[in-house]
Amino acid sequence: MNSRTYNAAGLQHFCASLFSRAGVPAGDAKIIAESLVGADLRGVDSHGVVRTDIYMRRLEAGMMNTDGHMPVRQDGPVTLLDGNNHFGAVVGTKALGLSLQGAKQFGNAVVGVKGSNHFGTCAYYLLQAVQQNVVMMILSNASQTMPPTGGIRPFIGTNPFSIGVPAGNRIPFVLDMATSVVARGKIIVAAQKGESIPEGWALDRHGNMTTDAKAALEGSVLPVGGAKGYGISMFIDILCGVLTGAGFGKYVNNMYENWQEPQNVGHFFIAIDISRFMPVEQFKARMDTYLEEIKSEPKAPGVEEILIPGELEHRCTLERLEKGIRLPESVERELVDWGSRYQVDLAQALL
Amino acid sequence: MNSRTYNAAGLQHFCASLFSRAGVPAGDAKIIAESLVGADLRGVDSHGVVRTDIYMRRLEAGMMNTDGHMPVRQDGPVTLLDGNNHFGAVVGTKALGLSLQGAKQFGNAVVGVKGSNHFGTCAYYLLQAVQQNVVMMILSNASQTMPPTGGIRPFIGTNPFSIGVPAGNRIPFVLDMATSVVARGKIIVAAQKGESIPEGWALDRHGNMTTDAKAALEGSVLPVGGAKGYGISMFIDILCGVLTGAGFGKYVNNMYENWQEPQNVGHFFIAIDISRFMPVEQFKARMDTYLEEIKSEPKAPGVEEILIPGELEHRCTLERLEKGIRLPESVERELVDWGSRYQVDLAQALL
Ligand SMILES: NC(=O)c1ccc[n+]([C@@H]2O[C@H](COP(=O)([O-])OP(=O)(O)OC[C@H]3O[C@@H](n4cnc5c(N)ncnc54)[C@H](O)[C@@H]3O)[C@@H](O)[C@H]2O)c1
Ligand SMILES: NC(=O)c1ccc[n+]([C@@H]2O[C@H](COP(=O)([O-])OP(=O)(O)OC[C@H]3O[C@@H](n4cnc5c(N)ncnc54)[C@H](O)[C@@H]3O)[C@@H](O)[C@H]2O)c1
Repeated sequence: MNSRTYNAAGLQHFCASLFSRAGVPAGDAKIIAESLVGADLRGVDSHGVVRTDIYMRRLEAGMMNTDGHMPVRQDGPVTLLDGNNHFGAVVGTKALGLSLQGAKQFGNAVVGVKGSNHFGTCAYYLLQAVQQNVVMMILSNASQTMPPTGGIRPFIGTNPFSIGVPAGNRIPFVLDMATSVVARGKIIVAAQKGESIPEGWALDRHGNMTTDAKAALEGSVLPVGGAKGYGISMFIDILCGVLTGAGFGKYVNNMYENWQEPQNVGHFFIAIDISRFMPVEQFKARMDTYLEEIKSEPKAPGVEEILIPGELEHRCTLERLEKGIRLPESVERELVDWGSRYQVDLAQALL
Repeated sequence: MNSRTYNAAGLQHFCASLFSRAGVPAGDAKIIAESLVGADLRGVDSHGVVRTDIYMRRLEAGMMNTDGHMPVRQDGPVTLLDGNNHFGAVVGTKALGLSLQGAKQFGNAVVGVKGSNHFGTCAYYLLQAVQQNVVMMILSNASQTMPPTGGIRPFIGTNPFSIGVPAGNRIPFVLDMATSVVARGKIIVAAQKGESIPEGWALDRHGNMTTDAKAALEGSVLPVGGAKGYGISMFIDILCGVLTGAGFGKYVNNMYENWQEPQNVGHFFIAIDISRFMPVEQFKARMDTYLEEIKSEPKAPGVEEILIPGELEHRCTLERLEKGIRLPESVERELVDWGSRYQVDLAQALL
C-alpha cells in the first residue's frame, strides 16, 4: 500500500475534470466523481475511484451517451425511466429525484429504470434520500458473476440490495449490501493487491472453491447464505430487469468485456414518505430507541461493539475526510495516466 | 413419524371447525385454517397445523380479538391497517386485499400493519397476489429469536422476507424466507421429533453454538449470512414495527410466553401493478425466458436440477394433495384433544 494520501475534495475535483474534459457535461461529471469518491470515503474502495479507469475507457470508446436525454414515463406514483445509456450515477441521481418527488406527492413511489450502467454504491443515493424523511429501498442488477444454487458458472449479478432510514440523534440506518458473500469489487481489489481471498467467497471457472483472487475473477462469486442469497439476487434481477425492460441475466452486459453494446443495467427505487404513517419526529424517536436498544445488548466475548448497518462506513467517512484517502499504486498509476492525457494534475489532490 | 395420513380439505375443515366453535367467525376461521394447512401442503410443516394448539390456547385465554373491527386509514396509495389484535391470517388477508386494491387503483400501494399476530407463512398471501398480476413483497416482524451480529441473546425476530412474481407457463416465483439460517419453526419441529440440528443454526442461551434443538429453543437462532441477514431482519423490523406503530424488538410479544399482552406484530405489504410497466403478457413471456434460462444452466456434480424459489414447495403441494399430509404424533395428539373438547372428529380428515 501506497503512503501518499489524497483529500476527498481534491480527488473528486480531479475525477470530475477528467470526465468533463472527456465530454461529460460538468454537472453530470461532478455527480459521477462524487459517487466514486463517496465510496472511497465510506471504505468501499471496490466502488471508488478504482472505477475511473473503466468509466473513462468506455467513455472514450464511444460506449456512453452524455446528451442528457433520458425519457420519463410517469403514471401517478409509478415511473419508468429510460437511462438511455447515460452513466449509472447520472441515471441513478435522476431516479432518486423522481422517487423523492413521487413520495412527497403520493406518499410512496416506485421508479423502475432501464438502459442504465454501473451506478456505484447504493449508499450514495440513500444518504441523500434519508435527509428527505423518506424510507428508500434501492436495488440494481449487474452483469453475471454468481451461479444459481446448484450451478457452476455465473448467471446472476451480485445485485445489491439496499435500504436507508433516517433516525433522530443517531446516524441513519444504511444497509447497502451485495447479494454475494462479498462484493465482487473486493475480489478485484484483492487481485490488484495480489492478496488471496477466504474460502467460501468464490468458485473458479471449473466450479471448484478457490482462494485465488484472480481465479475467482475468472470464475464466479457465491451468493450470501446459499439459496437465500440466490433468491434475493434473483428477485432484484426480476424487478430491475424483467419488469423495467432492462437486461436481466446474460442480457446485462459486462462493462469490462462487452465493447459492442450498452450495459442495459436496470435499477428499482421504492420511496415511502414517513409522514404518511406518523409524525416524522415521533418516527425518529422510535428509531433512536430501536437503535439504542440494539447497541446496548450484551456482547459476545471479544466483541467490542454491536454495530448498526452503515455505522462503520460513517466512521470511515469521518476519518478519511480528516486523514485522507490512500489509493493502491495500480489505481494511482491509472489516474496519473488519465491526468496527463487530459492535463489534470493528480498531485493537486494530495492531502 | 406417524403412518396415518390426512387429506388437506379434511384437515382444513377440522381446524376451521375448532376455531369457529371456539368463537372465531366462520369466514375468519376458514382463513386461519387455510393458511395453516396451506403451509403443511407446501412442506413448511413448521407453520402448519402444528400451530393450531397455540392459536387455540391464546383464543381460549381471551388473548385474541374476533369482533372483525380493524380500523383502516387510507391516504392515496399508502394505507395503515390496525389489526386490532385479530388473528394474523385474518389481518394479513385484509392487508392483502387493501394492497391489491391500491395497486390496481394507483399502480402501486404500500400497506403498513400494526396490532397483528403471528400470520403464518408469507407464501399464503403471495400465492393469491400473483394471480392478480402484481409483484408483491410481504414482510413481517416476529418476537425475539436472533441476536444482533456480535450479541449473544435474542433481540430481533426471524422476520420473514418474501416476494411473489407471476410467470407465464411456468409456476410463479415465490421467495419466502426466514432471515435466520433456518426458520425457528424448523427447530421447534426438530425438538418435537427429538432430532438434533446442524452446527451453525443456533446458539444456546449462553451464546455458544449448539446442535441440541431444545437448547437452541432456549437460546437464539442465527441470522443468515452473518451481518447481512442481521441487517435484513432489522430493516424488516423497522418497516413493520418502527414505521407502522406496531411493536419492534422486545415490544413484539412472544405468543408462547406472554399471556398478559397482545403480540402487536407488524407487517408490511408492497404491491406493484405489472401493467404499469409493460403489457402483462409481455412481462410473463420475459419471466418465462428468465426462469427457463436459469433452469437450463449447467449443473454442479451431483446436482440434478437448478430450482426456482417456490418450486419445491409447489411440487410438495401437488404431492401432498394427492398422497396426503402426515403429522408428528405429538401434533396429532394435540389435535385429537382439541377435537374431543369441541366435538370435532379428526378421524374424518384421514385420507
Ligand atoms: N452497482 C453494482 O453493480 C454493485 C454490485 C454489488 C455491490 N455493490 C456495492 O458494493 C458495496 C459493498 O457491498 P458489500 O456487501 O461487500 O458490503 P459489506 O459486506 O461491507 O456491508 C454490507 C452491509 O452490512 C453492514 N455491516 C457490515 N458488517 C456489519 C456489522 N458487523 N454489523 C452491522 N452491520 C454491518 C454494512 O454497514 C453494509 O450496510 C455496496 O455499497 C453495494 O452497493 C454495487
Ligand atoms: N410469521 C412469522 O413470524 C415467520 C417467521 C419466520 C419464518 N416464517 C415462515 O417460515 C417459512 C420457512 O422459511 P425458511 O427460510 O425456513 O424456508 P426455506 O429455507 O425452506 O426456503 C426459503 C426460500 O428459498 C427457496 N429455496 C430453498 N432451497 C432452494 C434452492 N435450492 N433453489 C432455489 N430456491 C430455494 C424456497 O423455495 C423458499 O422460497 C416461510 O414460509 C416464512 O414465511 C414465518
